[in-house]
Amino acid sequence: MTTPRTLTVPEALARLRWRRRFDPTRPVPNGTLKGILHLATLVPSQDNLQPWRFMVVRDDANRRRLRKCVYDRAEVEDAPVTVIVLGYRSPHRSHLGAILDREQALGTMTVEEAVEVRAKATARMDRCADPAAWSRLTAVRALTALMIAAESLGVSTALVEEVDHDRLIEAFGIPADHSLCGLVALGYPACDEPFPGRLGLADLCYQEHFGRPWTLGEASPDDVCAGP
Amino acid sequence: MTTPRTLTVPEALARLRWRRRFDPTRPVPNGTLKGILHLATLVPSQDNLQPWRFMVVRDDANRRRLRKCVYDRAEVEDAPVTVIVLGYRSPHRSHLGAILDREQALGTMTVEEAVEVRAKATARMDRCADPAAWSRLTAVRALTALMIAAESLGVSTALVEEVDHDRLIEAFGIPADHSLCGLVALGYPACDEPFPGRLGLADLCYQEHFGRPWTLGEASPDDVCAGP
Repeated sequence: MTTPRTLTVPEALARLRWRRRFDPTRPVPNGTLKGILHLATLVPSQDNLQPWRFMVVRDDANRRRLRKCVYDRAEVEDAPVTVIVLGYRSPHRSHLGAILDREQALGTMTVEEAVEVRAKATARMDRCADPAAWSRLTAVRALTALMIAAESLGVSTALVEEVDHDRLIEAFGIPADHSLCGLVALGYPACDEPFPGRLGLADLCYQEHFGRPWTLGEASPDDVCAGP
Repeated sequence: MTTPRTLTVPEALARLRWRRRFDPTRPVPNGTLKGILHLATLVPSQDNLQPWRFMVVRDDANRRRLRKCVYDRAEVEDAPVTVIVLGYRSPHRSHLGAILDREQALGTMTVEEAVEVRAKATARMDRCADPAAWSRLTAVRALTALMIAAESLGVSTALVEEVDHDRLIEAFGIPADHSLCGLVALGYPACDEPFPGRLGLADLCYQEHFGRPWTLGEASPDDVCAGP
């Protein structure tokens, strides 16, 4: 089998599907999995706090255990990998030092700037009304990047949204300062999944003010691909 | 100026930055804007409900008005476009019929399947504990795709997370069944923004169980690009 070409963003988004059936006999290679996780970490976050954490479940017994936490959805057992994406509400307490050290090592920040950013980032988190919600909303950006990155490397995904939270927390030891953001099963599809269509921009967009109709029209192929 | 090449997913993610400064003299062409919005709509959602809505603000007076809703952040005035991304909690009431009609027209669903999906989708929404939170978390996936799609077409983005909600709702007429998911300013950067680095996979990943160290190592360039 030849290595597939890495997809452009429009190609990957056009192929993205909410898969139901995975081929349980085809594992995701370690290199590909690491690549996908790495790409997911590249999305920006407030003060570079990166409040996403990934719990990678591949072991047979744990995939069966996970299935029991998601109301018996087969995807998480059939797929060779499921990533449990968590939002972490206290990165400013535990990781900000390491983050700022790295920025200084890269030469993108001076010592003085690091002191200032540390104070500002901490103050922003302290006035955040709901740090758990913030961490979850931010971690969804990494989860989405993970799905798009997977597709670009030829790996398909399924989201699992209906979760027995208490059971998952208990089974996988998730601490109170981490909140479930979502589960993404990763693997190779067992069958084709046709594109189910989407509402048009006229249904989904407003101009300037809520309720004011969208008049710019739908996108054409030229609009979504800048061409070679 | 030649049309730039559409970027691959790894390229777009590597170039994604949280921009601070936009060139206010350089508009985003209509075609590019439509392409970006269209690509954002391609992410999957539960029962294909697509609970994201985009309010596109480009008018000078409205960009100034928007700036007042985000504690005077200049990005939303300097950038030629800001998209206010909303989560909509009732798509199963207002849009499910149109969504299922489209699926039948595409041939991906029979009449009988549409009846079944309608019942299941409605039941799922009815038992959803917090539809507003669900719509916001889902809409973040479209917001993230929008950012990555913009970057792939050569357009940079800035997120604005600190928002005076009451003021925004009032100024832009956002109704109670729509919740703010986030603001994305779109435009061309006024200056370079260096990559600030990220924590490594060893800091962000666990294996099989929370707290169990990641032993698969970091990604190498071969892992993130399948090659030509």
